[in-house]
Amino acid sequence: MTRQIKLGAFLPGGGQHVAAWRHPDQPADGATSFEFHKQLALTAERGLFDAYFLADGLAVPAKGGTEGGRAKIAGFEPVTLFSALAPLTKNIGFIATASTTYEEPYNTARKFASLDLISQGRAGWNVVTTATEAAAVNFNLDQQHPHDYRYERAQEHVEVVKKLWDSFEDDTFIRDKASGQFIDPDKVHTADHVGKHFKVKGPLNVPRSQQGHPVIVQAGQSDNGRELAAATAEVIFTSHQHISTAQEFYRDIKNRARALGRRPEHILVMPGVAPFVGRTEEEAQEKYRALTSLIVEEDGLALLNGLTGGTLNFADYDLDGPLPPLPATEGMKSRQALIRQIADEHQFTIRELYQWIATARGHFTIVGTAEQVADTLQEWFENEAADGFNILPPYLPGALNDFIDLVIPELQQRGLFRTAYEGTTLRENLGLPYPENRYSILRNSKVA
Amino acid sequence: MTRQIKLGAFLPGGGQHVAAWRHPDQPADGATSFEFHKQLALTAERGLFDAYFLADGLAVPAKGGTEGGRAKIAGFEPVTLFSALAPLTKNIGFIATASTTYEEPYNTARKFASLDLISQGRAGWNVVTTATEAAAVNFNLDQQHPHDYRYERAQEHVEVVKKLWDSFEDDTFIRDKASGQFIDPDKVHTADHVGKHFKVKGPLNVPRSQQGHPVIVQAGQSDNGRELAAATAEVIFTSHQHISTAQEFYRDIKNRARALGRRPEHILVMPGVAPFVGRTEEEAQEKYRALTSLIVEEDGLALLNGLTGGTLNFADYDLDGPLPPLPATEGMKSRQALIRQIADEHQFTIRELYQWIATARGHFTIVGTAEQVADTLQEWFENEAADGFNILPPYLPGALNDFIDLVIPELQQRGLFRTAYEGTTLRENLGLPYPENRYSILRNSKVA
Repeated sequence: MTRQIKLGAFLPGGGQHVAAWRHPDQPADGATSFEFHKQLALTAERGLFDAYFLADGLAVPAKGGTEGGRAKIAGFEPVTLFSALAPLTKNIGFIATASTTYEEPYNTARKFASLDLISQGRAGWNVVTTATEAAAVNFNLDQQHPHDYRYERAQEHVEVVKKLWDSFEDDTFIRDKASGQFIDPDKVHTADHVGKHFKVKGPLNVPRSQQGHPVIVQAGQSDNGRELAAATAEVIFTSHQHISTAQEFYRDIKNRARALGRRPEHILVMPGVAPFVGRTEEEAQEKYRALTSLIVEEDGLALLNGLTGGTLNFADYDLDGPLPPLPATEGMKSRQALIRQIADEHQFTIRELYQWIATARGHFTIVGTAEQVADTLQEWFENEAADGFNILPPYLPGALNDFIDLVIPELQQRGLFRTAYEGTTLRENLGLPYPENRYSILRNSKVA
Repeated sequence: MTRQIKLGAFLPGGGQHVAAWRHPDQPADGATSFEFHKQLALTAERGLFDAYFLADGLAVPAKGGTEGGRAKIAGFEPVTLFSALAPLTKNIGFIATASTTYEEPYNTARKFASLDLISQGRAGWNVVTTATEAAAVNFNLDQQHPHDYRYERAQEHVEVVKKLWDSFEDDTFIRDKASGQFIDPDKVHTADHVGKHFKVKGPLNVPRSQQGHPVIVQAGQSDNGRELAAATAEVIFTSHQHISTAQEFYRDIKNRARALGRRPEHILVMPGVAPFVGRTEEEAQEKYRALTSLIVEEDGLALLNGLTGGTLNFADYDLDGPLPPLPATEGMKSRQALIRQIADEHQFTIRELYQWIATARGHFTIVGTAEQVADTLQEWFENEAADGFNILPPYLPGALNDFIDLVIPELQQRGLFRTAYEGTTLRENLGLPYPENRYSILRNSKVA
């Protein structure tokens, strides 16, 4: 089959753009409305998206948010939300973010396995290390662990979770009422993990789903982040302003995966794209300008503060002057570097910078017609910059509907996107292989 | 309004009785079938139950299970499962069990607040300390913490969670698109908790629901357990073989609550009842005998082992002889004492004992006609032994349908049970007060 573009939909109920909640199209209470999230899921499924994707933070940011905007000060916990949306949908996947730093592997493994079972194989776990001081102080710490420590713990956390997901081989359950034999005990396995950060015996008390186990997703851009992704991720969410840096990232990740013995097509690179789509270029520009005009300065600065490390007080600076040097951070190192790059490249003032990143926090923003957007996606897709994209509609549901009604048909016409779901599980739709149970592999290799 | 019986439904997909999965009526894969849990929720709602209740354990028990039976070796995590069931139902509440020992308060507060928001105010949290060695070794421990330590941590955990649930006053969200004012920052509160076990700043990033916050449920029977329940519980799940001990417990709990300044009617005592209901007494007896005949010895002994502390190997004893002395346990102390009491009172052999507790792990079992069951419930309800009951149908869906079709109409005829839901939230149906936000109370007291 011809290779086609994979699409994730990044749909926070509060909207993507910092000022989205003020847009006439967006319900102001979207972030805390279950009905609105249900509408978004059904809409994304109508658009044949592979997955509904949600970020997550374990705090209300004090001085500024990495997600940005007070419309996102409160909302749902992603795994419970997606569990509720799963039975209301049929094909779309659900990729929820959860932290390796502030959860225990047994609990992480369990909630995602449960979501995977409820959704009949449509779950994904976006692995994050949670890089904010605001979260650290909600979990018994005075300040967050260093970057390296978090990634080391993340690596071990993912390893334990994956082991736990294999606790039951696929043919464990016999359930013979006549004989009374419910399981084959030889097919149940303990993890017996003893490591630096965790000691976990197992087995997990949730079985595997139709897709084996949830899809592993990651977004780390630093060297640590890339190493973790190459080793364990099946989908990578990434952030680039230019095809050149996206290509560098794409090739690097595929090479790292190859070096670790993985097949490069089993790790999908999906840059974020925030599209303002119009029937004409002017209409698209007008949509962009309308949202920009709604930004509350305080929100824009809070977002900028969150994304640059959280230590600068922009009230002390001239907003129409340049971005000052940024102090080193133990938070999101690569995001900080990306913001710096954008500021320097465009020679933005502080005000222009927060207006620009207000759309999608540094993700690639396209303002144009459906043809122009499709051209860009096609160029990236066909030139080793992307296997697919995470679409971040700036306001909801309007910008999502625009993408579905205008861009999707254009991509379909070019043969670049599906016209029907390939399967019912997230793996089937993403074209990812079914992960054989590690203990079944061992058993079979012994027999052979 | 006249006081009426409150009813919870204890409906594990794998069935209550150790051998339930072998019953012709019960789907053998019920524990891992989402469709079956959906059917159970809809059935319980048809019966006008206040809540669907699920126990939880953070392990696959090694030598024996406190829930019992290999049919329960794997299943769903309760909060994700209930989130999925919430949008498919309208009135029934969802009481999920979660551990204060193996979770962090910020995560606990968050997932229950999210379930409460998704269900529009129908969530309850059954607070447990998780008393098994099998769970301890899944969370970095070599053996579980002592009983007292677990209860001390539980008390603090609940305190932090309740504080976090009040992070946003009910009128925090202004959401004025014109002015750009999304919140009133004076109505957002940090918890600033610094205690022996936890340090949690807050605020929580989930707002309060239609019922304020989830209903707090507990089941501890020991002195520690009763103290914790009297201080924080709104519903108490309890286990008694006789009206006399139920009355002692009922009065003790209400007195403890009164002593702590609480109104005794704001803490509902609900003993567990496992009913085998027949159109005749003989039919009911036959249902009981049929299930007993399906018990696999190994499962019966595993359950007995789990409930008596997990340290005896019953293979070393004559199963037709008496229960040996039980070694002291740091696990479920009061459950162990209850099993001892049952064994001594009935002069049960080991075999007879596991056959008896196979139904409902020591909960009160009634075998009889609808009139007989209703008589017993009425007697307990009208004589300070119970405000309601947690019904544990031994097999599913049959025994649940029997209760709904035979016993509920009998209770309704006597004016003892509702004929329609009183409200849409769990609190409204249970007759529990709306918990005012602590910070709003403070503010109002300053104004007055």
